[in-house]
Amino acid sequence: MTREVFEIEPVAHVVGGRIEPTDDYWGGSQSIIRIDASQFDAESIVGLEEFSHLEIIFRFHLTDPTDLHPGARRPRDNQSWPPVGIFGHRNMRRRNWLGVSRCRLIHIDGLDLHVEELDAVHGTPIIDIKPWFSEFGPRGEVREPIWPSEMLSAYFASPK
Amino acid sequence: MTREVFEIEPVAHVVGGRIEPTDDYWGGSQSIIRIDASQFDAESIVGLEEFSHLEIIFRFHLTDPTDLHPGARRPRDNQSWPPVGIFGHRNMRRRNWLGVSRCRLIHIDGLDLHVEELDAVHGTPIIDIKPWFSEFGPRGEVREPIWPSEMLSAYFASPK
Repeated sequence: MTREVFEIEPVAHVVGGRIEPTDDYWGGSQSIIRIDASQFDAESIVGLEEFSHLEIIFRFHLTDPTDLHPGARRPRDNQSWPPVGIFGHRNMRRRNWLGVSRCRLIHIDGLDLHVEELDAVHGTPIIDIKPWFSEFGPRGEVREPIWPSEMLSAYFASPK
Repeated sequence: MTREVFEIEPVAHVVGGRIEPTDDYWGGSQSIIRIDASQFDAESIVGLEEFSHLEIIFRFHLTDPTDLHPGARRPRDNQSWPPVGIFGHRNMRRRNWLGVSRCRLIHIDGLDLHVEELDAVHGTPIIDIKPWFSEFGPRGEVREPIWPSEMLSAYFASPK
């Protein structure tokens, strides 16, 4: 059987902000999404300033691709939380190593998008930049287990 | 300069639902995300049933990759709406051809995730499956121009 493989290339990179991919305290963090000027020009972001939030696809480029756990495991290996399969986590140990995050767009300077609370470190390859449409948020009642809110209680807290 | 390229492979495919990638009337649509059994087993989805919504990264596999418009253009070529750059759109004509959507998880049968209102057609390669954490939705006040809500007024309407 032929493998079905797609190539993706960064459209931008994260500049500034945090260097270490630690779990928590992204509150108030500021960084730049620097769009690749060899591929794109000012036309690429016309109208983007009308949106308060962006949705970003990025590559977890610091993850060791051999560090994949096929079995279910507890979030952050915390015994208080139930084992969850690879598709029940959102962390960096995943197939294709893509993260999806929402961040606030603060201002635009040339091809630099200044953003807040993007949970991706300096140097992260950005695979896509989309405006956040509230119409495309989850529809209907949202239900989730208790462990994500417990796990993320300090995720967007300010650094100590 | 060396190109920075990553390979991605589908973890699943969409089975059933709509065949034609038309713009509107995804309301109530049902389809299956069939996880690739050659790569994953039942452990991969342990705990997923606790979540009402999934966040899906998929490939716009029907898009002609040469059909890219570098300049700003009006959404759906509608003269009522302003020109927007490639990063101001969410449609299929984009670099890396990745869509991100939220859908409702209805039930799970083996490695088949039965979902509602996933706006991806039969055969679509799924690149990632994540649980929706409400903590990771947009934080703070959301602001967007008027054109997305006008454009999407029938997007999740029921088919006529």
